[in-house]
Amino acid sequence: MIGETVTLAMGAGGALSARLIEEVFLPAYGNEALNRLEDAAEIETGGGRTAFTTDAYTVKPLFFPGGDIGRLAVCGTANDLAAAGARPAAVSAAFVIEEGFPIADLVAIARSMRDAAAEAGARIVAGDTKVVRRGEADGLFIATAGVGRILPGMAVSCRRARPGDAILVSGPVGAHGVAVLNAREALGFIPDPRSDVAPVFDIVERLAPLGGKVHAMRDPTRGGVAAALGEIARASGATVLIREARVPVAADVRACCEILGLDPFTVACEGRLVAVVAGEAADDALARMRAAAGGREAALIGRVEEAPDGGEAPPVRVETVVGGRRFLAVLDGDPVPRIC
Amino acid sequence: MIGETVTLAMGAGGALSARLIEEVFLPAYGNEALNRLEDAAEIETGGGRTAFTTDAYTVKPLFFPGGDIGRLAVCGTANDLAAAGARPAAVSAAFVIEEGFPIADLVAIARSMRDAAAEAGARIVAGDTKVVRRGEADGLFIATAGVGRILPGMAVSCRRARPGDAILVSGPVGAHGVAVLNAREALGFIPDPRSDVAPVFDIVERLAPLGGKVHAMRDPTRGGVAAALGEIARASGATVLIREARVPVAADVRACCEILGLDPFTVACEGRLVAVVAGEAADDALARMRAAAGGREAALIGRVEEAPDGGEAPPVRVETVVGGRRFLAVLDGDPVPRIC
Repeated sequence: MIGETVTLAMGAGGALSARLIEEVFLPAYGNEALNRLEDAAEIETGGGRTAFTTDAYTVKPLFFPGGDIGRLAVCGTANDLAAAGARPAAVSAAFVIEEGFPIADLVAIARSMRDAAAEAGARIVAGDTKVVRRGEADGLFIATAGVGRILPGMAVSCRRARPGDAILVSGPVGAHGVAVLNAREALGFIPDPRSDVAPVFDIVERLAPLGGKVHAMRDPTRGGVAAALGEIARASGATVLIREARVPVAADVRACCEILGLDPFTVACEGRLVAVVAGEAADDALARMRAAAGGREAALIGRVEEAPDGGEAPPVRVETVVGGRRFLAVLDGDPVPRIC
Repeated sequence: MIGETVTLAMGAGGALSARLIEEVFLPAYGNEALNRLEDAAEIETGGGRTAFTTDAYTVKPLFFPGGDIGRLAVCGTANDLAAAGARPAAVSAAFVIEEGFPIADLVAIARSMRDAAAEAGARIVAGDTKVVRRGEADGLFIATAGVGRILPGMAVSCRRARPGDAILVSGPVGAHGVAVLNAREALGFIPDPRSDVAPVFDIVERLAPLGGKVHAMRDPTRGGVAAALGEIARASGATVLIREARVPVAADVRACCEILGLDPFTVACEGRLVAVVAGEAADDALARMRAAAGGREAALIGRVEEAPDGGEAPPVRVETVVGGRRFLAVLDGDPVPRIC
């Protein structure tokens, strides 16, 4: 192997950069397009509508129960494509690595990316590695980008939610944020809450036959379900009413949130999909979600309503278990910093 | 404006993240695809062969004579597409920003990216911003990815160089690396050497009518012309002979390199293209390069030769001004660290 830790020379484009690629990245996620090592990979888009997205990942710790930064980076980008109604096809990965980073960790992360890409049905076809001096980065950052083909008939947009639409979530919420917080702050919750980080394309594929009846989709990452629905409501000029009792939250996540004073609706998921569908398609959409491997615990959690006159009210309201109503405030930041 | 410096909350997906996007990024490079702020942008690829690439940028200083990290990030990715024979169409930009980074610098960098994208004929259609704590990153890193359509008839590959092929470079070499080194180390060369950072697609477009006679192209960044030709020669199982007297080097770059003990062939360019073309097309290719705005000082600098028996010799040789021959060694790293 090239060595035990990453050195500046491994990011400088010379012989050691080539060895890092040949010994770490190609064995993990080599494929025909990547192996050519051209300046750009040639990919198939097939001529349909193409989706393109990017995200940067700075999660601490790099390894957490249920995943790691590599799995997160691939799933996050694949899920942004899926939420746009697209089948993930090609993913790129750019690394910024701090000098001294353990090669063994890099190998583990690259393998994790390969596995996540395979689950998402995508290939990692392009990459880049830069190494910065000790103290100039905090271990490792990864930026991924992705390209996918939009499924025929899909026309989702955060502007298309309409009063009367039903709101569905594909499974229990808040697990990723709680898992990372517990791991980072060594809070000691036992058993460790596990991140839900996983591709959601299988759920999107099940919804695709509903075509134009699927109005909006989001993967509720930073800011959780509250932020995803807030964005959709604001962009659509509507409000959203959520029934608290219907939102699935795992028992361990609920317990952690209560102790920490967090609202699980505002905590990040990394393997969930929020879908806004025409009211008449709600039952069909729910059945389709539940038929997907990642959607067995899907639930109908609320509906879209007219915005009140003036439109200045917060866009997301929650009907509590005891029948009261509260607004979900839009936070300035995140209740759980740096969880993606 | 949102404030004077970047805060952690601006990267956390809440209201302040939205303001950062609305006040800094959208005014700089807003366009129809980006303004929708969907999870993924929809782009046109037109159904042809598609190229996809990524790079991370960690240059110090962030601003240098002739450019900045934003211009570099857009040109670098656009030029990787161009070197694959593709017209740059869409670029994504993922930022990792250190808490406390000046908003004014971020605005300047975003505008610089917009201008570079316009020069390259591309749009910035997707982005992401993460903020890390003070001391966890060195100011700002940017990872860009890009998608483009491969021009009809182009079939370049670093494996296609053949003995008898001519080697062309589109202009004077080594300016970017020397400019950054001078700025970072405050070497005090006067006048300041300026980076050559610029899109090279106009040159590729001029070469495109030669179709399959263009065998290989590279933008010679890290490791310079020597590394680019070394990669092509190794991948093609050939060697390359460069005539030193024919390689254009600006007087100020040559002077800096002599004083610093650098070989300008090994120093990064960020606005140059190396092309390997069939021998019979050499004169035509040179005339085409020189007809492009960025290629007026293009030169025919050498040729591809058979690899000697055994194939273990270094792949790039230089015929010196006085008629001797020397090998260009493949360095482990880069003579000028962190110049891209």
